[in-house]
Amino acid sequence: MEYIFSDRVQSLKPSAIREIFKYAADPTVVSLSAGNPSPEAFPAKEIAEISAKLMAETPIAALQYSITEGYTPLREFLTDYMKTKHNTGSDSDDILITSGAQQIMDLASKAILNEGDVVICENPSFIGSLNTFRSYNARLAGVTVESDGMNVEELEQTLKNEPRAKFIYTIPNFQNPSGVTMSLEKRQAVYELAKKYGVLIIEDNPYGDLRFRGEFLPNIKSFDTDGIVIYAGSFSKVISPGMRVGYTIAPKPIVQKMVVCKQGQDVHTNIWSQIVCHRFITEYDFDAHLARLRSIYKKKAEYAMELLDKHLAPKITYHKIDGGLFIWCDLPKNVDTAEFCMKAVQNKVCVVPGTAFMANPTDETHSFRINFSTPTDEQLKKGIEILGEMAKEL
Amino acid sequence: MEYIFSDRVQSLKPSAIREIFKYAADPTVVSLSAGNPSPEAFPAKEIAEISAKLMAETPIAALQYSITEGYTPLREFLTDYMKTKHNTGSDSDDILITSGAQQIMDLASKAILNEGDVVICENPSFIGSLNTFRSYNARLAGVTVESDGMNVEELEQTLKNEPRAKFIYTIPNFQNPSGVTMSLEKRQAVYELAKKYGVLIIEDNPYGDLRFRGEFLPNIKSFDTDGIVIYAGSFSKVISPGMRVGYTIAPKPIVQKMVVCKQGQDVHTNIWSQIVCHRFITEYDFDAHLARLRSIYKKKAEYAMELLDKHLAPKITYHKIDGGLFIWCDLPKNVDTAEFCMKAVQNKVCVVPGTAFMANPTDETHSFRINFSTPTDEQLKKGIEILGEMAKEL
Repeated sequence: MEYIFSDRVQSLKPSAIREIFKYAADPTVVSLSAGNPSPEAFPAKEIAEISAKLMAETPIAALQYSITEGYTPLREFLTDYMKTKHNTGSDSDDILITSGAQQIMDLASKAILNEGDVVICENPSFIGSLNTFRSYNARLAGVTVESDGMNVEELEQTLKNEPRAKFIYTIPNFQNPSGVTMSLEKRQAVYELAKKYGVLIIEDNPYGDLRFRGEFLPNIKSFDTDGIVIYAGSFSKVISPGMRVGYTIAPKPIVQKMVVCKQGQDVHTNIWSQIVCHRFITEYDFDAHLARLRSIYKKKAEYAMELLDKHLAPKITYHKIDGGLFIWCDLPKNVDTAEFCMKAVQNKVCVVPGTAFMANPTDETHSFRINFSTPTDEQLKKGIEILGEMAKEL
Repeated sequence: MEYIFSDRVQSLKPSAIREIFKYAADPTVVSLSAGNPSPEAFPAKEIAEISAKLMAETPIAALQYSITEGYTPLREFLTDYMKTKHNTGSDSDDILITSGAQQIMDLASKAILNEGDVVICENPSFIGSLNTFRSYNARLAGVTVESDGMNVEELEQTLKNEPRAKFIYTIPNFQNPSGVTMSLEKRQAVYELAKKYGVLIIEDNPYGDLRFRGEFLPNIKSFDTDGIVIYAGSFSKVISPGMRVGYTIAPKPIVQKMVVCKQGQDVHTNIWSQIVCHRFITEYDFDAHLARLRSIYKKKAEYAMELLDKHLAPKITYHKIDGGLFIWCDLPKNVDTAEFCMKAVQNKVCVVPGTAFMANPTDETHSFRINFSTPTDEQLKKGIEILGEMAKEL
């Protein structure tokens, strides 16, 4: 049988990053290519306690069908918490619990994009989201990421050139992969431009709570008096990614369509994990937990940057970060990035070539991404030393 | 802001059934409208044990990111189990763990359907799947369900009339909502017709293990020497629906595309629930558990049919069942089904009008669906007595 697939998926391929992960699975290779939280960051003891109590006292609540919108106490808590703590969400918004923030990208795309529509994204950007947009046959228009976020002149030019643009996708805090945080001025400018050109914004904020230096900046959603921002939150980096719990705060009509799409996609998110997340953030000291995470990642990030300073300079440079899980490194312009990364794997260290994160495969990049949250300190040291040896030879 | 949605979802509405569920949420209303497993059917004690052990011994395995294809030990076990026990799956197939079987409908639709393509389905059929097909702008072509399954002459005529038909969607065992089981002859005929006309089959089998009477019949997938059947299995009715764990066994090229789509949809299925399912079916006596479920549902189904015989005859008739969770009841032809069901709700019993399950809203039906797994015996008795009072007045 010759299978004929839909137009939208015919050219879709497993992400390039997956090929790299195959090498990373080799135990002799130091992997700096993942994006997993550090194992020590999980509140494993607390989750075990909550889960045991839940299963002993009200197992049916965790095992029976639930409603598509999500576990009501979690929705109510988050609505209040995000409003109070981050000025995020208003009476014209609604909240939907999703199976990780990745599902928000899918549901929003499904509800909003026709085939051939355009998504404006930071260039580089998170490959998982870009692939979701591609899976709906959207075309990606990349806008250069500068040290303080998107180039706003380029954004406006893109908005002018792309009448089929439907939304701007941005990760304002500690962007994956560049590590860049968008300045307050640019957050406001992006919001105003979206409003001016009548497009929506998807604000993806998985790392916002992982700031270990500098001042918290307001979410773009906090300016949203016009009902144009779809905010994507996630527990993957602050509680557990294996649980797959995210949430979107977005204008009611959009959430309504997303609920209908979710109903047909997975009925509802695993209810055990929704209850566990709710109890963890309400019955334990969530602020203290976040402070602990920030201290874990501060230590790891500073150690990684110290190693980069020591071993990679001056040939390979990197962008300093204030939070998140990733560091973006720049090769000299005359070096072929893909070739360098392939050679690194042969030398037993795995990093992700920048090409994987570009809006279009032909977009030029001389960078690669390092993750510091997953490896141990020893692995980090060994991996960056190998890259240092390679830097000397450039 | 006026929101412009994609063509595919513009006309999508929350399922009609949800409106009915709003009434069913009223505690004074007896709900015979759900499809939830009976609370006594959950292996709650065993799941609590497994979960506690897992969280005590290897919490990170249950909390960290995992791979899109699913938990490897579960995939390997199911591949072997389905092959050995049900002759389902071959070397040219692969297996993918999904977030409930509902996700199989979404991933298969996304991978296979272009907008305007046709899905051939039983008429009536499961509204959740029909809405997923609709959400990809597919057109539904319904084929009448007879007491032994689809009318195969009508199926062949439909295949002739619909050159854009991409797959046939069928629930061969204890179909939702009709309760009908497809005969062996028709399973073979449907397979041969699909092959002849070059379309795929999605075989959805959530209730197969819940047969309490008669002989097990082979899955359509067991005939699949041509690589045309996508088999959908689920733990929702035999372990827990809140966990959201399903699995598809399908030709490798199709599974590959579904994996890419799933990656962009939710990355992977909740890993705690995948491990719990694996341990429950491998470390406990799964056959004994299934036997217990069959005995629970046999008792409930027989009690429901006894009540229907006693109170609804002769005005309202019903179709005897050999398994599953639903009974399909026929009103006299001169009675308006929607009006009858609305009056039932006013009389404090909630059933689902047949119209909700039809391929097209204008398709005629004089039936409604009763569920007997969720209500207690007392609720079932009270609900059917109320319907009996209404039957007398017809």
